Amino acid sequence: MLLGNYPGKQGLKLPATKFKKLSPPPRILLGPGPSNVSKAAYDALATPIIGHLDPDFLAMMDEIGEMLRTVFQTRNRLTIPMSGTGSSGMETAFVNVIDPGDTVVIGVNGVFGERMCDVAERCGAKTVRVEAPWGDIIEPDGFISALKKNPEAKIAAIVHAETSTGARQPLEEIGNHLRDTDTIFLVDAVTSLAGCDLKIDDWGVDICYSGTQKCLSIPPGISPVTFSEKAENALFSKKNKVQSWYLDLSMICKYWGSERVYHHTAPVSMLFALREGLRIVLEEGLQNRFERHEKLGRMLSEKLSALGFEPFAREGFQLPMLASVILPEGLDDAETRRTLLNEYKIEVGPGLGETKGKIWRIGLMGESCSAENVEALSSALKSLRGG
Amino acid sequence: MLLGNYPGKQGLKLPATKFKKLSPPPRILLGPGPSNVSKAAYDALATPIIGHLDPDFLAMMDEIGEMLRTVFQTRNRLTIPMSGTGSSGMETAFVNVIDPGDTVVIGVNGVFGERMCDVAERCGAKTVRVEAPWGDIIEPDGFISALKKNPEAKIAAIVHAETSTGARQPLEEIGNHLRDTDTIFLVDAVTSLAGCDLKIDDWGVDICYSGTQKCLSIPPGISPVTFSEKAENALFSKKNKVQSWYLDLSMICKYWGSERVYHHTAPVSMLFALREGLRIVLEEGLQNRFERHEKLGRMLSEKLSALGFEPFAREGFQLPMLASVILPEGLDDAETRRTLLNEYKIEVGPGLGETKGKIWRIGLMGESCSAENVEALSSALKSLRGG
Repeated sequence: MLLGNYPGKQGLKLPATKFKKLSPPPRILLGPGPSNVSKAAYDALATPIIGHLDPDFLAMMDEIGEMLRTVFQTRNRLTIPMSGTGSSGMETAFVNVIDPGDTVVIGVNGVFGERMCDVAERCGAKTVRVEAPWGDIIEPDGFISALKKNPEAKIAAIVHAETSTGARQPLEEIGNHLRDTDTIFLVDAVTSLAGCDLKIDDWGVDICYSGTQKCLSIPPGISPVTFSEKAENALFSKKNKVQSWYLDLSMICKYWGSERVYHHTAPVSMLFALREGLRIVLEEGLQNRFERHEKLGRMLSEKLSALGFEPFAREGFQLPMLASVILPEGLDDAETRRTLLNEYKIEVGPGLGETKGKIWRIGLMGESCSAENVEALSSALKSLRGG
Repeated sequence: MLLGNYPGKQGLKLPATKFKKLSPPPRILLGPGPSNVSKAAYDALATPIIGHLDPDFLAMMDEIGEMLRTVFQTRNRLTIPMSGTGSSGMETAFVNVIDPGDTVVIGVNGVFGERMCDVAERCGAKTVRVEAPWGDIIEPDGFISALKKNPEAKIAAIVHAETSTGARQPLEEIGNHLRDTDTIFLVDAVTSLAGCDLKIDDWGVDICYSGTQKCLSIPPGISPVTFSEKAENALFSKKNKVQSWYLDLSMICKYWGSERVYHHTAPVSMLFALREGLRIVLEEGLQNRFERHEKLGRMLSEKLSALGFEPFAREGFQLPMLASVILPEGLDDAETRRTLLNEYKIEVGPGLGETKGKIWRIGLMGESCSAENVEALSSALKSLRGG
């Protein structure tokens, strides 16, 4: 039984009074996402909507494109938000390029590298895995060797910010190697976009996707993607129709481009929120934003270390916006997180897969990345640890 | 050039002051969707979010399931919202059941029947089209004959409310025929759900999907789907992995079911809105809601007819929430819609495909379905027509 018991057949008779007005508890979101949402984004969500073909809406789409290019640090014209969460961006990245039988080289050092293999294989790709232990990075040398052994590879894919481990993957060396090849450089930046430096054009990244619920501090549900000219060419020279109608960029870019051809009804409110979220990022300035995440991330790590939580990700390659820490001996994972949530209203994230019960993942992303929150968490932990 | 000119490379230098705070114009949304959103849904969207694995969020997911079953008039346990627009629901309906080579019989009498063929073919299905002119229904007899000629069909698919033509498709006779066969009865109810009667269980529908931006009056971006036990069995006996990781119900239902396994980060705010939108539907009562749409739909049609706009969809099979009307001789389609939008703040929808320039599609859905709006539109048209 997958979804629990069958409900009674209540049809029209479900009492209207059964459900009270929505009122979720207050939370400080310091998990691996979603992070707290900016007031500007909530205002946007509460703004009365207009139609998805309204001239004012089309003008706003152009603004979103312009702002997204700035945040991705790219000139790629094909830079748009997909109507789904970050995982739909991952799927978009693969389905629009791969034909069955294509080779894809993938770095696997956590959940999201693993997921890329699954997605690529569902497109009929032959996957070549380049593995590293969880918490470590994929050594650029080793990855480049694998690419040299598989020069026919259509895609080389790697995760910039492994949300499951807290490792920050260096990209420049790989991008430089791929620049003069036919292989497309595909990067998962769900957790890193707008939180640490990510230079799509300068680093030679061809396809990149992200989410909104991390350092952009908009609710989850939209996935910004960018495709370079090289990736666009691959899209338009693909042999078979894109297997997903919903994520078919050859159709969707006619809606985002000057033709304005209806594809699906755009998620108006979420795009309002994205527009405002991006505006807030530009107001702060990308560089200032990166520095805030660096500084507070370092402050948090020091405080955690003093409390007995040692870093899990490899030294020198730790993400500023997501600290992965090893639980001190004797600390009860689930029980402590429950107390943090119920008594302190603070959410932190558990380990996934092989790190379950062994690490926590603590996000300081976007709105959540503040000195007050660092203080709130560390003093709560101090109390709990009897410090 | 698909997306217009390349923007200049502004990188970090885009001036923060360039973008003012979002402020879209007010609109009365009387197109084919989105419709106006209820205050309850806007309140929900502006409510501070919580995590997608927070115990309070999980409890809310159960409430959504319970309310959705009531609105779909079904006991199907697999009744959940997909994290995308109505078109992602369509794709979900096909990708989770079809293996390459399967036969699918599809009724085609408008854009959305056509789209179902495209989606099914991308899954490798052999499609059998049962066609009727736009504005007409698919004759149940003819559809059933096609099913008898293709008894091996995995799916029989039809659109309940053809948003492109305004035709309301009768479903009961087809459902009765399919009930004791192995063929799955798949229905598109994007425009009809919560606006006119739709009895999933009583009518023998196995798979149904909808959108939120029509009669539920929540912004676009979520797609409620329901799968019967027969459809669930097809899902779990499918030979190949679902080609879409993002829409793979065998994984997603473990998050919505009692196991609570993380799949993708749920679109928290949109689910808050769905929860409140559904609550509003139950408060009004399904039957009352259907009667409101019937009564006001009839009132609008009469007023439009008096102004020279005759119904496009076949008599006796017109949708209550979406009037499709033939433009009177001499009326300029684009120009008149522009005036309605700019001077009266009213949006109506143009014809699609072969009906472009010939018909309008006027929605009276959910919040937009009010006597004031009928009055506002008809008096605006009266002025414009010099009446």
